[in-house]
Amino acid sequence: MKMKMKIDDFRVHEGASVKLKKWATMVKPYYSSEEKYQKMLSDHVDQLSRLQELHYASNTKAVLLIFQGMDGAGKDGVIKHVMSGVNPQGCQVYSFKHPSAAELKHDFLWRTTRALPERGKIGIFNRSYYEEVLITRVHPGILKSEGVSDDVRPWKHRFRSIVDLERHLERNDTKIIKFFLHLSRAEQARRFLARIDDPEKNWKLSIDDIKERAYWKDYMTAYEECLGATSTKQSAWHIIPADDKLNARLIVSQIIIEVFQSFKMKYPKTSASRQKELKHIRKQLVTARDTSR
Amino acid sequence: MKMKMKIDDFRVHEGASVKLKKWATMVKPYYSSEEKYQKMLSDHVDQLSRLQELHYASNTKAVLLIFQGMDGAGKDGVIKHVMSGVNPQGCQVYSFKHPSAAELKHDFLWRTTRALPERGKIGIFNRSYYEEVLITRVHPGILKSEGVSDDVRPWKHRFRSIVDLERHLERNDTKIIKFFLHLSRAEQARRFLARIDDPEKNWKLSIDDIKERAYWKDYMTAYEECLGATSTKQSAWHIIPADDKLNARLIVSQIIIEVFQSFKMKYPKTSASRQKELKHIRKQLVTARDTSR
Repeated sequence: MKMKMKIDDFRVHEGASVKLKKWATMVKPYYSSEEKYQKMLSDHVDQLSRLQELHYASNTKAVLLIFQGMDGAGKDGVIKHVMSGVNPQGCQVYSFKHPSAAELKHDFLWRTTRALPERGKIGIFNRSYYEEVLITRVHPGILKSEGVSDDVRPWKHRFRSIVDLERHLERNDTKIIKFFLHLSRAEQARRFLARIDDPEKNWKLSIDDIKERAYWKDYMTAYEECLGATSTKQSAWHIIPADDKLNARLIVSQIIIEVFQSFKMKYPKTSASRQKELKHIRKQLVTARDTSR
Repeated sequence: MKMKMKIDDFRVHEGASVKLKKWATMVKPYYSSEEKYQKMLSDHVDQLSRLQELHYASNTKAVLLIFQGMDGAGKDGVIKHVMSGVNPQGCQVYSFKHPSAAELKHDFLWRTTRALPERGKIGIFNRSYYEEVLITRVHPGILKSEGVSDDVRPWKHRFRSIVDLERHLERNDTKIIKFFLHLSRAEQARRFLARIDDPEKNWKLSIDDIKERAYWKDYMTAYEECLGATSTKQSAWHIIPADDKLNARLIVSQIIIEVFQSFKMKYPKTSASRQKELKHIRKQLVTARDTSR
């Protein structure tokens, strides 16, 4: 059973100008009940698990998933619910938090580049180099810690560097799939309140999260410019309505599945010379001494 | 429903002398049917998933799982079947294959040390620094590539370095759980033959795997010395009968579960001052403007 969804509804086209007010934070759910959601998600997880195995065996590409969004948008939750079930040997998650002093001494793409996935693997960036044109733009004082004078406005150059890096990765068989989890400010408040009420979750909330809410508009403007400037045909941004967590997980997983399917992967073929080698191996293995206990 | 199993049956005691012939590669299964196995495993996976979440929240320890065993012993399979289901954000797998030229220029513990898990995470080593007293011992020519003259026999020093490193890690809140998947030579042959017959799996098999079978006895001797010399009370080796894959997965997962349970982890407590802060945060969030859409 395939989820009826048009990826294009969520994709930012190259060169588009993005107005986030025109992009929904909530759409009609693809599930009709919680039970139905569970079934659909578990079906997606199974598909992803099989696709990842094939991806690993075919060993031709790397896949990089990038998740961006405001605090509480559900990045951790999407990663947990969509990617649990995938063999952890084929999948690496990096959460980029405050950079170290050593990282700050390098160019702004350095620390994430070191964490790029290898062929056959899925890499997941929970936040990414995009923070460098988002939080850094909203709080340009951060530039100073990066050794950049704060009267410079490097955003255009940074967009260029990012697009160039992503084009380079595409040419070298890393497929990048980018998700912006689009949350409303009101829903963020509701989620923060729910965290306060849950004794198993309130450790997650800090006063800094609240302070950042004052910059909501600045963040939205930074996101709009970023999504418009860095969405390309090959590495497109997807704007995911995130006010309904369950729906967001279904949409994200469906997008990943469809991208994997578009690779038309196959298990490695057994060539004639390889057939011969396998025959030779078999012969060595089937001697009586070798298979007896 | 708890699996009735005594960890002690699989644990190598500190100072013990290990004779692998006396350790079973096959024991009576803990499951009575394949269906029962599926149920038990999925119960274990659920437990592990919950324990990992608590582990992440309590943020007091790191956990390192080390898997060693001959080719075909089922290391990849155990990792896949036991650890899929755990949030990939809390879990990192490293498979150590041929070292790079740069890695060979460092001491033999360097490349794995860089991959150690951080607090709140589970790190999994699929092969590890133990290869340096196993394959390297069976083929001492490898020492030369490490810049060590091959008339030196560094094994005793290496055991000492390993035990010292593991004691250091224990003192600094990294819990190490070590598994040797104990496979019979005959079962290895059967598994290799099965791989040849499976077009989706025969790419995994190489002629080198077969060549190593000739050194089986040398490997067993190297394992025996290694398991005896590096099993300590805090970082014990577990010898897992691995001829029955399903049983091995149940045993391994049960051991990990019991070790996690022994930590007596708790979600972080909300202190009085933190309560006050949360109250303050709530006040800021519940203004009409903040929760309305």
